[in-house]
Amino acid sequence: MTMWLSLLIGLVLTCTAHTQPALALEPAGVIDPLPSWNEGRAKHAIGEFVANVTQPDSPDFVPINERIAVFDNDGTLWGEQPLSFQFLFALDRVKTLAPQHPEWKTKEPFASLLKGEVQDILLGGDRAILEILMAMHAGMTTQEFEKVVIHWITTARHPKTGRLYTELVYQPMVQLLAYLRANGFKTFIVDGGGVEFMRPWMERVYGIPPEQVVGSSVKTKFELRDGKPVLVRLRELNFIDDKASKPVGIHLHIGRRPIAAFGNSDEDLQMLQWTTDGSGGKRFGLIVHHTDAAREWAYDRTSSIGKLDKAWDEAKTKNWTVVDMKSDWKNMFAFEP
Amino acid sequence: MTMWLSLLIGLVLTCTAHTQPALALEPAGVIDPLPSWNEGRAKHAIGEFVANVTQPDSPDFVPINERIAVFDNDGTLWGEQPLSFQFLFALDRVKTLAPQHPEWKTKEPFASLLKGEVQDILLGGDRAILEILMAMHAGMTTQEFEKVVIHWITTARHPKTGRLYTELVYQPMVQLLAYLRANGFKTFIVDGGGVEFMRPWMERVYGIPPEQVVGSSVKTKFELRDGKPVLVRLRELNFIDDKASKPVGIHLHIGRRPIAAFGNSDEDLQMLQWTTDGSGGKRFGLIVHHTDAAREWAYDRTSSIGKLDKAWDEAKTKNWTVVDMKSDWKNMFAFEP
Repeated sequence: MTMWLSLLIGLVLTCTAHTQPALALEPAGVIDPLPSWNEGRAKHAIGEFVANVTQPDSPDFVPINERIAVFDNDGTLWGEQPLSFQFLFALDRVKTLAPQHPEWKTKEPFASLLKGEVQDILLGGDRAILEILMAMHAGMTTQEFEKVVIHWITTARHPKTGRLYTELVYQPMVQLLAYLRANGFKTFIVDGGGVEFMRPWMERVYGIPPEQVVGSSVKTKFELRDGKPVLVRLRELNFIDDKASKPVGIHLHIGRRPIAAFGNSDEDLQMLQWTTDGSGGKRFGLIVHHTDAAREWAYDRTSSIGKLDKAWDEAKTKNWTVVDMKSDWKNMFAFEP
Repeated sequence: MTMWLSLLIGLVLTCTAHTQPALALEPAGVIDPLPSWNEGRAKHAIGEFVANVTQPDSPDFVPINERIAVFDNDGTLWGEQPLSFQFLFALDRVKTLAPQHPEWKTKEPFASLLKGEVQDILLGGDRAILEILMAMHAGMTTQEFEKVVIHWITTARHPKTGRLYTELVYQPMVQLLAYLRANGFKTFIVDGGGVEFMRPWMERVYGIPPEQVVGSSVKTKFELRDGKPVLVRLRELNFIDDKASKPVGIHLHIGRRPIAAFGNSDEDLQMLQWTTDGSGGKRFGLIVHHTDAAREWAYDRTSSIGKLDKAWDEAKTKNWTVVDMKSDWKNMFAFEP
């Protein structure tokens, strides 16, 4: 009951912006806004939180302009195995550009990448991947890079499943994004991936516009080329949006503290801490735990990708919701029968 | 006719988000959404542009999610004389904190500031002011700094007029912001001022939320203080959002090209170039020209504050709208009789 009512109230609140009208809606039928979630603790906790912060007579009511929700991307909204998808993009780019760069055969990190040896780069995390992409695309305009990303994301296939990468987004999370927005939330991405890698497709896939994507970035420079203004990608990192930098990125970009945060690994620990330690009021933290080796992958404390260890322990003491993908998610992908 | 119809269509479009419904509205009466603007070329150009990009059957129609408008703040939305208001904030802070810093009597730039000698700092622009604020507030948490800003903006008085600084916002521009939003635009600030100086009051005064404020910034660091997460201001600049950096800031933060830009000085030249050189479609550039010495200040080509020279010349060749404050604005401030 709470959930569909919140949804309806949310839809109206979204349209009336900052006002909070007294409502007396008679629903035509009960619609579950989260049909891919099994009934259980996680789904219940989500519905309860949304009701608490959106019902005008609730002691935990939050005005609509302060309803900020932040989502990690890799491993939270879409997959990240056998390598983060941005890493697979970088690998594809190295292969595509290698014929123009015979020197890469002996030059690191390209030599290792061309041989498929990725272990060292994995240890370097998002920074290492961004540095590779940066090196390959320095001097390119931002518009040219955007075209490269759009071509890849609409044609490249995931090595294990043969699917387009955008088919590997988790349906329960896409529904959760829509459910929060219907309740007046502004949904943001806060991820270690490059902003220029994420923005070109996220609006279409998640309904999240470019201006609500916070990520890592390289520096760019404004120039007039033949009288036409362009932004050129430089070979210099601007910001790496991981771990303790996630709250920094949130502050820099969003400028106020979220009331809900969603992640899946220790990379999200500080974002969860920053979000849920707001001064008073209900706050919500959620961790997606990869437990489903049949439909996807199962990994946590010892994984070299998406390691979930400290944040999992802290979830217990901080009362964050931990989603068991195997039991909490009825459907995982849109292509499932 | 065009303007109120656009306003009504805009209100409905805002509520229906990405859909473009066929409308047949009968207005109850003709409401001028820009009552502080005199009829004339500038007002007409604004109404025409909005109609062109919002009417569904227009060849220049722009989908609602791409209606991004960017506004400079100093000299465009509020005054900037006799010094930029952030500079006056910095001066007040120097005086307030001086008793705890006897060494400032002989240490630059504080010694000059305490004597009221500001010429050297003026030459350094937004960067010089931000460096002073940064030096004074290093080690402070972002929440502490926000309190300082809120106290100042709600109590400090402008030296010439004795008004609160927020009373010195231009009513025609506040109406313009609301008019664009009613037509489905997302309005952003893109200014050289510090984001942490601007965000705490802009939502209340302009209706622009923190996440839509792009500005200069200092670096911050995430820490746990007594187990509580905080962000600490460091003594290191992060980004200066002026001149050729404005398109960089727009790309970094908004991630897509605006379709309308509003400024008042050569500081806004590249932002205007970047915005109005979009690939195809109607784009809008506007420059506020300070021509009214009676109600405010009159300055342009030779001013050390808000110099308008190159951008004014380029306005002619690029067909940007130049607002003559004296003749185009019926009312300037809300407190006028």
